[in-house]
Amino acid sequence: MAGNTFGTLFRITTFGESHGTALGVTIDGCPAGIPLDEALVQKELDRRRPGAHAAASDGTPDPRGGRLNPAMTSRKEDDSCEILSGVFEGKTTGTPIAIVVRNTNQKSEDYGDIAFKYRPGHADYPFRAKYGVRDYRGGGRSSGRETIGRVAAGAVARAVLERDGIAVRAWTSEAVGISCETFDEEAIEQNAMRACDSAAAEKMLARIIELKAAGDSGGGIITCRIAGLPAGLGEPVFDKLDALLARAVLSVGAIKGIEFGAGFAAARMTGSEHNDAMRSGTATAGGAEPGAPLSGKPDFLTNHAGGILGGLSTGADVVFRAAVKPVSSISIQQQTIDTDGRDCDIEVRGRHDVCLCPRIVPVIEAMAALTVLDLLLQQKALR
Amino acid sequence: MAGNTFGTLFRITTFGESHGTALGVTIDGCPAGIPLDEALVQKELDRRRPGAHAAASDGTPDPRGGRLNPAMTSRKEDDSCEILSGVFEGKTTGTPIAIVVRNTNQKSEDYGDIAFKYRPGHADYPFRAKYGVRDYRGGGRSSGRETIGRVAAGAVARAVLERDGIAVRAWTSEAVGISCETFDEEAIEQNAMRACDSAAAEKMLARIIELKAAGDSGGGIITCRIAGLPAGLGEPVFDKLDALLARAVLSVGAIKGIEFGAGFAAARMTGSEHNDAMRSGTATAGGAEPGAPLSGKPDFLTNHAGGILGGLSTGADVVFRAAVKPVSSISIQQQTIDTDGRDCDIEVRGRHDVCLCPRIVPVIEAMAALTVLDLLLQQKALR
Amino acid sequence: MAGNTFGTLFRITTFGESHGTALGVTIDGCPAGIPLDEALVQKELDRRRPGAHAAASDGTPDPRGGRLNPAMTSRKEDDSCEILSGVFEGKTTGTPIAIVVRNTNQKSEDYGDIAFKYRPGHADYPFRAKYGVRDYRGGGRSSGRETIGRVAAGAVARAVLERDGIAVRAWTSEAVGISCETFDEEAIEQNAMRACDSAAAEKMLARIIELKAAGDSGGGIITCRIAGLPAGLGEPVFDKLDALLARAVLSVGAIKGIEFGAGFAAARMTGSEHNDAMRSGTATAGGAEPGAPLSGKPDFLTNHAGGILGGLSTGADVVFRAAVKPVSSISIQQQTIDTDGRDCDIEVRGRHDVCLCPRIVPVIEAMAALTVLDLLLQQKALR
Amino acid sequence: MAGNTFGTLFRITTFGESHGTALGVTIDGCPAGIPLDEALVQKELDRRRPGAHAAASDGTPDPRGGRLNPAMTSRKEDDSCEILSGVFEGKTTGTPIAIVVRNTNQKSEDYGDIAFKYRPGHADYPFRAKYGVRDYRGGGRSSGRETIGRVAAGAVARAVLERDGIAVRAWTSEAVGISCETFDEEAIEQNAMRACDSAAAEKMLARIIELKAAGDSGGGIITCRIAGLPAGLGEPVFDKLDALLARAVLSVGAIKGIEFGAGFAAARMTGSEHNDAMRSGTATAGGAEPGAPLSGKPDFLTNHAGGILGGLSTGADVVFRAAVKPVSSISIQQQTIDTDGRDCDIEVRGRHDVCLCPRIVPVIEAMAALTVLDLLLQQKALR
Repeated sequence: MAGNTFGTLFRITTFGESHGTALGVTIDGCPAGIPLDEALVQKELDRRRPGAHAAASDGTPDPRGGRLNPAMTSRKEDDSCEILSGVFEGKTTGTPIAIVVRNTNQKSEDYGDIAFKYRPGHADYPFRAKYGVRDYRGGGRSSGRETIGRVAAGAVARAVLERDGIAVRAWTSEAVGISCETFDEEAIEQNAMRACDSAAAEKMLARIIELKAAGDSGGGIITCRIAGLPAGLGEPVFDKLDALLARAVLSVGAIKGIEFGAGFAAARMTGSEHNDAMRSGTATAGGAEPGAPLSGKPDFLTNHAGGILGGLSTGADVVFRAAVKPVSSISIQQQTIDTDGRDCDIEVRGRHDVCLCPRIVPVIEAMAALTVLDLLLQQKALR
Repeated sequence: MAGNTFGTLFRITTFGESHGTALGVTIDGCPAGIPLDEALVQKELDRRRPGAHAAASDGTPDPRGGRLNPAMTSRKEDDSCEILSGVFEGKTTGTPIAIVVRNTNQKSEDYGDIAFKYRPGHADYPFRAKYGVRDYRGGGRSSGRETIGRVAAGAVARAVLERDGIAVRAWTSEAVGISCETFDEEAIEQNAMRACDSAAAEKMLARIIELKAAGDSGGGIITCRIAGLPAGLGEPVFDKLDALLARAVLSVGAIKGIEFGAGFAAARMTGSEHNDAMRSGTATAGGAEPGAPLSGKPDFLTNHAGGILGGLSTGADVVFRAAVKPVSSISIQQQTIDTDGRDCDIEVRGRHDVCLCPRIVPVIEAMAALTVLDLLLQQKALR
Repeated sequence: MAGNTFGTLFRITTFGESHGTALGVTIDGCPAGIPLDEALVQKELDRRRPGAHAAASDGTPDPRGGRLNPAMTSRKEDDSCEILSGVFEGKTTGTPIAIVVRNTNQKSEDYGDIAFKYRPGHADYPFRAKYGVRDYRGGGRSSGRETIGRVAAGAVARAVLERDGIAVRAWTSEAVGISCETFDEEAIEQNAMRACDSAAAEKMLARIIELKAAGDSGGGIITCRIAGLPAGLGEPVFDKLDALLARAVLSVGAIKGIEFGAGFAAARMTGSEHNDAMRSGTATAGGAEPGAPLSGKPDFLTNHAGGILGGLSTGADVVFRAAVKPVSSISIQQQTIDTDGRDCDIEVRGRHDVCLCPRIVPVIEAMAALTVLDLLLQQKALR
Repeated sequence: MAGNTFGTLFRITTFGESHGTALGVTIDGCPAGIPLDEALVQKELDRRRPGAHAAASDGTPDPRGGRLNPAMTSRKEDDSCEILSGVFEGKTTGTPIAIVVRNTNQKSEDYGDIAFKYRPGHADYPFRAKYGVRDYRGGGRSSGRETIGRVAAGAVARAVLERDGIAVRAWTSEAVGISCETFDEEAIEQNAMRACDSAAAEKMLARIIELKAAGDSGGGIITCRIAGLPAGLGEPVFDKLDALLARAVLSVGAIKGIEFGAGFAAARMTGSEHNDAMRSGTATAGGAEPGAPLSGKPDFLTNHAGGILGGLSTGADVVFRAAVKPVSSISIQQQTIDTDGRDCDIEVRGRHDVCLCPRIVPVIEAMAALTVLDLLLQQKALR
């Protein structure tokens, strides 16, 4: 399995390279009758587009009418999507939905340097080792543009999840060494960092401008919350909800770690501190209860478990955090080898993101939505 | 997919409950001609057995001839394995290998309390929500005994990996709040914590004895290293090596987080700090290079990437860390609800582990070995 | 995928060789709450057991209290099953159900001849070519005993299908050159051939006694009918209902062809002859209709389509026929080569079936039930 | 699994409806370094195009420079393909290959009649039952145009198989009641029926002209031969080579049966007639032998087995026959019901094929090639 397919019942297959003809996705297993058009998909694609954010702090005019985001590359990516199949009279039909985005902005650049030198922190060397050949133009298949297919499919998944009252939301909780100190959900889409703390976002942007001037880059942490899940989602052994979310999130380039609930801090807690006590809930059970009726749904007094016990959702919010590494493309000189195995130096020129956090937020949301929807459909099968 | 199957080409399916008739695994896709007998499997099963460790610090005599390990339950588990199929004249035949371990030590206990109350930190409530029914005896399918099938299959996977010079090794690097400060590989299997620092292990055991006396429990961190991988293992999009390892490791109960290389610390590094510089390697390339010859294999001057770039192995050691939560079964009184949804309290009695780290080490090794072998077989298919 | 797993949501994995320690199956994805015990499984296993049929026509006493079936080997196979997991208090729990049957009757035979010569019509040569090694004892994994796991799992699948009013029934419609001329459903389990025509069964048995005396064997045709399916089962492209049934049935050793409805005869019909006309049905729709209500369910005036159009069930009975080749083990001398590649002759001695039809009937039923149940669960997921 | 994906290691996902925006396929798992361009794919697509055959017997001028084929619809389908990804500098890169064909010739027809009446022999009714909604334009997803993606992917698979000397060839062996009596391989692509007997082809075409005049249609039989397979391909239980080929071939619309080697005739043979005797072969073994060397490769004196024993290839040619039902769209008046469940009559107007055989030949070849290549890659994994 060459690994471009994700999911079992709601199953997507992505394709496309940074500088090829087009990128896209085929979604198989979408329920019939879901309202879907290109606008719904385009809205999510626009969120991952570079420079697309309206509220950048430095005031540079954005050619699309907003202001430029200093965290992001100034490369223009239109990323207009087209739905090729699976929709009839404005609704899904149950057949595969293919969505493509043509690459329109590939400059006929001179790729000489990165064609013959392996960029540190990039997949250049292991790609060459794996396949013998390599599409070096802009990172090829390992470019961040690969996420276009994920985000397009995620938009469809979210539309389906909404039917069941499930909402996926992610935000930047730390970037370039600066942590958010407050949580303001309204602020997230209002600042250029997609941070949950506007004041912290300003500091992050100031630090990003410094890093950019130095030709350097930075990392950060994304937090994601999935609300509205019924209890019992996930499977108890290899397909634990946290295991599948971890795979989904680590499959995004630049993510180097994930933790659920208390996460690594749980390693230093005692059982009496960590266990989430339960009290009788006021809400009626909305869960996935086949057969016998389930009397009562608990309220969890804390959520150190991050909404997951034994790999199954508890009905509390699922919460995880993902570590984003600093952008690998930096214009500072670095030591590397060339494709003949000789020592050389490289400075990676071009327009690059400084910190990926704001652009990765919609990708994480997409992966979480895809994972949860697939498990939800599987759960329905067994009633 | 009810999620009891793991892997694509080297594929295992596990079964069994804590207090059912037997637990086990079927391995499908094992190459033919690999020497295999029950002793090879039993050796790994013995490593995950409670109280099996010979070098416990408190001197309590172990009924099997060693000394009792205070971190582990004193429950006796014989866990003798039997190979039912797939081996002929001492070698694998390419057909499925079924391995079973009978449950011999189930006391006919009174399960009344846990049958009717949901234990905090356990999967009791979401199991009931998912299936409507629940085998409450000893945790049923969500018991730690479920890992018997994983460890048995892992033993076979490791035997296959040895052909290719790949070695998987894990150890406790932190437990009950105490971190290892030195790395002594020889020490790992010599101390009751499977820690890489014998002095730290002594401190951990002392703390564990205190926790046990208080009816409480603790967590820790496991580090794992995979050495000898060719460059290019893994797939560049959804089946990234780190994504599949994350799923494998998070599928183990009690694991709440994973990080690769610099991991969460990478979030605070700059690109120039984090990128691993390369210099021309002295070793000849031993990797997975189809087609064009690969001139030269790099030496990485650091390993912040944890041996993985763009989801593919780089040829450097793969290194990850996993967070282990404190054992959920504690005899301290906790708030919960009963199966009728009414508030109640619970004290979880019985013989329980205090800290899972030493017993989880062989499970993590098994999951890492299974993941890597499956990708290795997939890689061979495409040459 | 080494191919010992079948199904997506209701997924089975079988293991075991003819003369190994045990054979069996693990069933993953069985809904919780289904009543299940060993008697239910044993009943189906007994139907595939050699010599187990009570009503053989030649009057030879059966050591189990019936009369010997001349079509079948006189080898004694007890085939007692044991359920190892997945059942609690008499019901399935949603976790994997492992079922094993120990091999108790392996004579310590001298296998010399078949160990070193490839039997014509058997998989001996391609097994050796595939794996390099081969468990030659009684056919190893390619023995008919491999179907024990299928039949055990099929028994569980049929128990689940009964909830939805779906019934799978197969019978011998032709054997050793003699065709059934009437259809008497009651007769099927009353005669030693599982034929739908008792008079034809007598003629088949007479012919079988002749073939046995000559050391030869014969083939036949099995017909299978699946009643009670909702309309719309199956998937419209690669997972057409007929495609998946064909794979399921051709995966049974000795099956050389399958046809649905008019089948090969359709090749000579015109469209106006073949198309099944529809009239407004009296029954209310019992099908798999999501979304918009479906007014009216058609009656099909004929069933040349065998209950399947475009890969989807129509609501009419699904009907297919499968060709069974003559038993390959014959005591007549045949030309072959030995494992050193030299010409030699072979006479396959031992107790063998003469015609597989009566024993294959329950296997075909099992495979059809497993296929249909898996699709039914998938269909539920998309509502 | 909504069933638009086929294969495990060489895995394709198709999409598209008859009158949607585009149809296509994504190929995942194609080895890197295979020469590939649009011309290679287009050549196969042109073979399945209606009216594309140069040598039709009735002399009608073909707008593309040949003569019209009376068996096929006169609808113009350009079916120009575009490769969107996965190819760099004329070779595959190991990343997914997306190929699309835009629908350019959809007349803005009045679909009123087929929108509200279920056509007999078509999937209209079960589609509606399955999904609640239905894209009725030209059959939607169940149109024969769905095979465009299969044929495009098959072209790539065949290019890979050529490296290993494996050739897949299919032809019409019977159509509209007329059987081929000779086998002339050269003739196949020279006559409008893709028949292996030119004289029979003339008679078939004459009969087709009669059927067309009557508004009726006919069926036929396709034979397929796969040459050059190593011994041991396929898996011994559920993934038998014949089982997977059966699924692949029955997944093509209009196929109602398949048989291997002697097929249904085997049901009437004795074992001594059916078993294929072996003699020491002169050829050296070219097979898939891991481990121990395989001395000698047999010559099979007959091929009743169709090149498959126990689900594994024997090294002899794999041969199967598939039954093609008559085209369902006929202009003769038929009884049916409308979408409100009321009785009505229908005459299916428009330009339709009379007999599908010549157009299905390249589809069968594609499905056989895809099946065999996937198993070949799996086999390589286990060496």
